Amino acid sequence: MRKGKTAQLSIPQAAGRTAGGGISRPLDHWLVRRMLAWMHEPPVVVRLWDGTEIRPSTPAPEVTMEIRDRGALLTLLLNPDLNFGDLYSAGRIEIHGDLTGFLVEMYRRLNTRGDAPFLRAARAWINRPRRNSLSGSQDNIHHHYDLGNDFYRLWLDGEHMQYTCAYYPDASLTLEQAQAAKMDHVCRKLRLRPGDTVVEAGCGWGGLARFMARHYGARVRAFNISREQVAFARDRAAREGLGDRVEYVQDDYRNIEGHYDVFVSVGMLEHVGTLQYRELGEVIRRSLRRDGRGLIHTIGRNRPKPLNAWIEKRIFPGAYPPTLRQMMDIFENTPFSVLDVENLRLHYARTLHHWRERFEQHCERVGEMFDEQFVRAWRLYLHGSEAAFSAGELQLFQVVFAHHHNNDIPASRAHLYDGRMPP
Amino acid sequence: MRKGKTAQLSIPQAAGRTAGGGISRPLDHWLVRRMLAWMHEPPVVVRLWDGTEIRPSTPAPEVTMEIRDRGALLTLLLNPDLNFGDLYSAGRIEIHGDLTGFLVEMYRRLNTRGDAPFLRAARAWINRPRRNSLSGSQDNIHHHYDLGNDFYRLWLDGEHMQYTCAYYPDASLTLEQAQAAKMDHVCRKLRLRPGDTVVEAGCGWGGLARFMARHYGARVRAFNISREQVAFARDRAAREGLGDRVEYVQDDYRNIEGHYDVFVSVGMLEHVGTLQYRELGEVIRRSLRRDGRGLIHTIGRNRPKPLNAWIEKRIFPGAYPPTLRQMMDIFENTPFSVLDVENLRLHYARTLHHWRERFEQHCERVGEMFDEQFVRAWRLYLHGSEAAFSAGELQLFQVVFAHHHNNDIPASRAHLYDGRMPP
Repeated sequence: MRKGKTAQLSIPQAAGRTAGGGISRPLDHWLVRRMLAWMHEPPVVVRLWDGTEIRPSTPAPEVTMEIRDRGALLTLLLNPDLNFGDLYSAGRIEIHGDLTGFLVEMYRRLNTRGDAPFLRAARAWINRPRRNSLSGSQDNIHHHYDLGNDFYRLWLDGEHMQYTCAYYPDASLTLEQAQAAKMDHVCRKLRLRPGDTVVEAGCGWGGLARFMARHYGARVRAFNISREQVAFARDRAAREGLGDRVEYVQDDYRNIEGHYDVFVSVGMLEHVGTLQYRELGEVIRRSLRRDGRGLIHTIGRNRPKPLNAWIEKRIFPGAYPPTLRQMMDIFENTPFSVLDVENLRLHYARTLHHWRERFEQHCERVGEMFDEQFVRAWRLYLHGSEAAFSAGELQLFQVVFAHHHNNDIPASRAHLYDGRMPP
Repeated sequence: MRKGKTAQLSIPQAAGRTAGGGISRPLDHWLVRRMLAWMHEPPVVVRLWDGTEIRPSTPAPEVTMEIRDRGALLTLLLNPDLNFGDLYSAGRIEIHGDLTGFLVEMYRRLNTRGDAPFLRAARAWINRPRRNSLSGSQDNIHHHYDLGNDFYRLWLDGEHMQYTCAYYPDASLTLEQAQAAKMDHVCRKLRLRPGDTVVEAGCGWGGLARFMARHYGARVRAFNISREQVAFARDRAAREGLGDRVEYVQDDYRNIEGHYDVFVSVGMLEHVGTLQYRELGEVIRRSLRRDGRGLIHTIGRNRPKPLNAWIEKRIFPGAYPPTLRQMMDIFENTPFSVLDVENLRLHYARTLHHWRERFEQHCERVGEMFDEQFVRAWRLYLHGSEAAFSAGELQLFQVVFAHHHNNDIPASRAHLYDGRMPP
């Protein structure tokens, strides 16, 4: 099923693949050494197609990067950010050993030692403001979220289908418990009360809306442009008897109308172009009552930088994790005060760890649904994302805000931590 | 004593003060009505020097603004932001009724309805980046903080002499308890441990440094450019037997040297020009160990705006409360992640309420130390500040940060709220 989707990952195979490029030459070895120098000498052995190994000066590397043909080496050198992922997906590069650990090491080195000058020069272009049109947003979202509910069901938490960072106040929580804890944390931050009206921008499979309705007695109108997700969400809500309290709207957040006690958005801002942040602020301004509360949960950055080029091209077209400074475009032009910001990046590393464990358990099934190249691409994406959050390359911000006139603010955040278990 | 200091508040008295400007005329009444329209019709009666009252259309105003001479009316109209304070201080304007309530109402109106166009036009100039030179900083700080320890002792909390926002997790706390709770909240956010080395930028009378040493076993080096405060702090530390664990350095934060486990700054950033934020970030970068933690506590804004012109001129020269966006200049150019932001603005409103109550208890003594004009200026400043925090015109941000590689981050912020009372 859905084989057609994998066309996005079609990568030319090396011409001389069977021969592996013949015997490696001194020029190949010199190129590998240059590449390792650019990579700030990571603790990795590079094994070439003919078995030649280039070892770093660091002692006892535990990871081997196998480059299986000369074309792969040259392609990698040309644009490592973009091509490593394609070559790995195609099986032309293999990592033997701890893939996440290797990627963490790579992120740490790049962050500490700084980019090469040509990368810095590329930043000005890369960080240009981005605008997502309504139809462009639809294409981007369909690319990723309409891969099929059956696919995501294999490795997300079964009950709530949360494809966003979970919350592990206790490291021993299961993925299911941690996703419930995340939703509860969000509800507490919003001080959600029975009868509150909520508008949700970007609701995924609708799990948070159902959670708010069931456990907090809220009435939720949830927006999402993904047809498959909305169909799933409506079905679940109907089967769980929540159809009268939860309404799923297949539409863009920019078309939100009405007035609400609460605005919430978990994992949508990554798909909103920075040029739309003021407009998002305006949507919130016109829809939130004067005594309302709001929360935005998003992947973020410490400083402006695009998503990894390969992930942006192959996995999440149009996605961009903002800095806190960029997020202020939402709030500074509106009458809102930021009340609370929490950075949950290590919780996302743990969430991704749980996801990739489940993904591996089902990778044969995924291979049947798509193909092996798809399996390898998603393996790299899940490992790479865990590595990025673990290495501090990506952040996870939850931002709570309210109208600046609103003095109904709790004296402390103790109500988030009263020891009550999430439902 | 210290009479010389009040020269800063010398304001020309109205020539015809005794006569009160004679009988008020239709032009005066028209000007008052124009002024009330510009102020978005606040619920206030304006009484002129001859007893004429101009009443607003709103019902039952509880506050009367008495304008005691025609010159005061014209001066007020010319530049209300700056001149209201001077005229109030000089007794040429009097507010009968709830001064704080009146000022809250003014802030709310201005914020909701927006500024007049000429005010908006002035913003570009007003929001120009500010640079504080080392010598300029010294002048500014001496202006305010060297008014004399005896003066501040009259109305700050006696034990810790905290001239920053206190923390009232429980509204019934006394000022003394709330200042201890603030320092404890800061220590918990920093996860301060025995033996930790701390550098403090801008230490006031040194209360936080002594608190950290006494209750958390930390060794603290605290910087401040105010001679009188440093002398006070050293004396207190010696008398309390903390001289071996707390060192007060009379120097600018830009001259901080050494490596520390913790960087903390409470109430200094308001005096650091925005153009120096990158430099402050660099000071923190070079002084904080890789596993270190940092906290900056500052008055802030939702959007860029200068401090009230009168307060900036008469009370706090060179002060500027930044937005979160502006604060990111400290962090975005350094290897730090923002972990936690808490907005405590209503705690500052309560702190100021406690301060002004004590100030009023001692205003006769203050009048002897300075003069009546000084008493009125500080009365307005304390009431006005309470109003600004209460109306959401000013914010109070506590920002916790750490090196982005540092994965020794607590899984939740529950350790801030374990029910233990501050020492």
